[in-house]
Amino acid sequence: MKLTTYLRDGQARLGLIDGASVIDVQDAQPQVPSDLRQALLAGHDLIALAPAILASSAPRMPLASLTLAPLVPEPGKIVCLGLNYFDHAKEGGREKPEYPWFFFRGASSLLAHGAPALKPRVSEKLDYEAELAVVIGRRGKHVPKDKALDLVFGYACFNDVSVRDYQKRTPQWTIGKNFDATGGFGPMLVTADELPPGAEGLHIQGRLNGRVMQDANTRDMIWGVAETIALLTECLTLEPGDVIVMGTPAGVGQSRTPPVWMKAGDVFEVEIDSLGTLTNPIVDEV
Amino acid sequence: MKLTTYLRDGQARLGLIDGASVIDVQDAQPQVPSDLRQALLAGHDLIALAPAILASSAPRMPLASLTLAPLVPEPGKIVCLGLNYFDHAKEGGREKPEYPWFFFRGASSLLAHGAPALKPRVSEKLDYEAELAVVIGRRGKHVPKDKALDLVFGYACFNDVSVRDYQKRTPQWTIGKNFDATGGFGPMLVTADELPPGAEGLHIQGRLNGRVMQDANTRDMIWGVAETIALLTECLTLEPGDVIVMGTPAGVGQSRTPPVWMKAGDVFEVEIDSLGTLTNPIVDEV
Repeated sequence: MKLTTYLRDGQARLGLIDGASVIDVQDAQPQVPSDLRQALLAGHDLIALAPAILASSAPRMPLASLTLAPLVPEPGKIVCLGLNYFDHAKEGGREKPEYPWFFFRGASSLLAHGAPALKPRVSEKLDYEAELAVVIGRRGKHVPKDKALDLVFGYACFNDVSVRDYQKRTPQWTIGKNFDATGGFGPMLVTADELPPGAEGLHIQGRLNGRVMQDANTRDMIWGVAETIALLTECLTLEPGDVIVMGTPAGVGQSRTPPVWMKAGDVFEVEIDSLGTLTNPIVDEV
Repeated sequence: MKLTTYLRDGQARLGLIDGASVIDVQDAQPQVPSDLRQALLAGHDLIALAPAILASSAPRMPLASLTLAPLVPEPGKIVCLGLNYFDHAKEGGREKPEYPWFFFRGASSLLAHGAPALKPRVSEKLDYEAELAVVIGRRGKHVPKDKALDLVFGYACFNDVSVRDYQKRTPQWTIGKNFDATGGFGPMLVTADELPPGAEGLHIQGRLNGRVMQDANTRDMIWGVAETIALLTECLTLEPGDVIVMGTPAGVGQSRTPPVWMKAGDVFEVEIDSLGTLTNPIVDEV
């Protein structure tokens, strides 16, 4: 099943993708909340409901006509991993880390597919990071690695756009990862049942104005999805609608000679096998 | 005006404190959402509504009889400052920082007044941090320092309980600040109109089993509330219901010789002038 979140009258609403069309999930199944996180929190089995949604008489909207929203507009938490591809750790002059470098994003940093990422007023050092995002579907604490994937609802593309000078103003990266409109998240979520376990073995590519800047495979992640969930749930409860953003491979702008910074007029794309292409133009913050 | 959030039938609900009693805000004003963040997001002027709530015939509940919830159970974001008192930076062997060390908490780490903080299964290094919390009431981006306090709705006590070994496993502190049930937040919110600008000049104390461990004044913060809001809003939009946790003064357990770690049976209190006392016992995670 493929889902997206789109705007209707300014409200983010969950849609089921059927080829080139989208069916509003709540139009077809009025008992399901219109927000993916709320639907998961309420325990609705969206995969089981899919045939009824597809068979319903709810209107079909052309996907290409919709304005999208971030897939989960208000996650309970957005946990990001730094340095989760060895080649990216190495290009930053770091050793292979022994534990994930976790930091959080807030919902106010999220960005829909197609929406403009903001080049901040206060910085010129805007960088891209193509990443795999994991959407949690079930609550869990102290989940062993061999059960960890039971918590996963689905996967999507993410662009962990980073404001490098703010990221490095102190040892805490958080502020440089939380500028408004820097966390591209879309265009669609593919449920875990349609992908290899842990979304392993997927080609992931980041392109700036069509030029390939990052080119890797999710099997090259140091911590896979299952291990990451096991490590996180030693500490905290993962809840339906939480998001884990799995880190980026080599090729980011800051590690190039000379460095490459995104500027107004650029377009960055994140493409992952089976998960589609997340596209965001860059505009200046006014 | 003093507000609290309490549990009724398992749901967190906003209450107005009137002496030793609490009036459920929505019982008195049905149009106001029962959640503080949602009420602020919807633009309700709670201070203007207070006289009507106090005059209503809605039932009064004894404050002492209520089970509280975190003041804002699901903030849009919880921005925390590290090293915001020079004496605390110094006790950790650090210089006075030149920019705040921002990190985020997630809502799943929050803890109500009176509820037990969890000593994790995986760590013995559980530490306390008495802090001032700021609840944002109005949206803002690029807010200059002299207008920044217009964004503040009110203030409360916070205990930024920290799992020190996880905090230091990598340079990113986030995971050590996000264990379940470690972010004490309460017992009440006092609106900004009843406090000095920026809540400056308030005595703040942290006590472990009655013994004073931290004893300082909010005027000793390196970045005050207004300056912090100005710095943050260079980067991101602050939204109603967001929370800023302002950092802790000297005296934390990890900096003592020998170090002091909290264990099951301990009780930690955070007391701030005019904001009451936040009390949390420690229990072992089972």
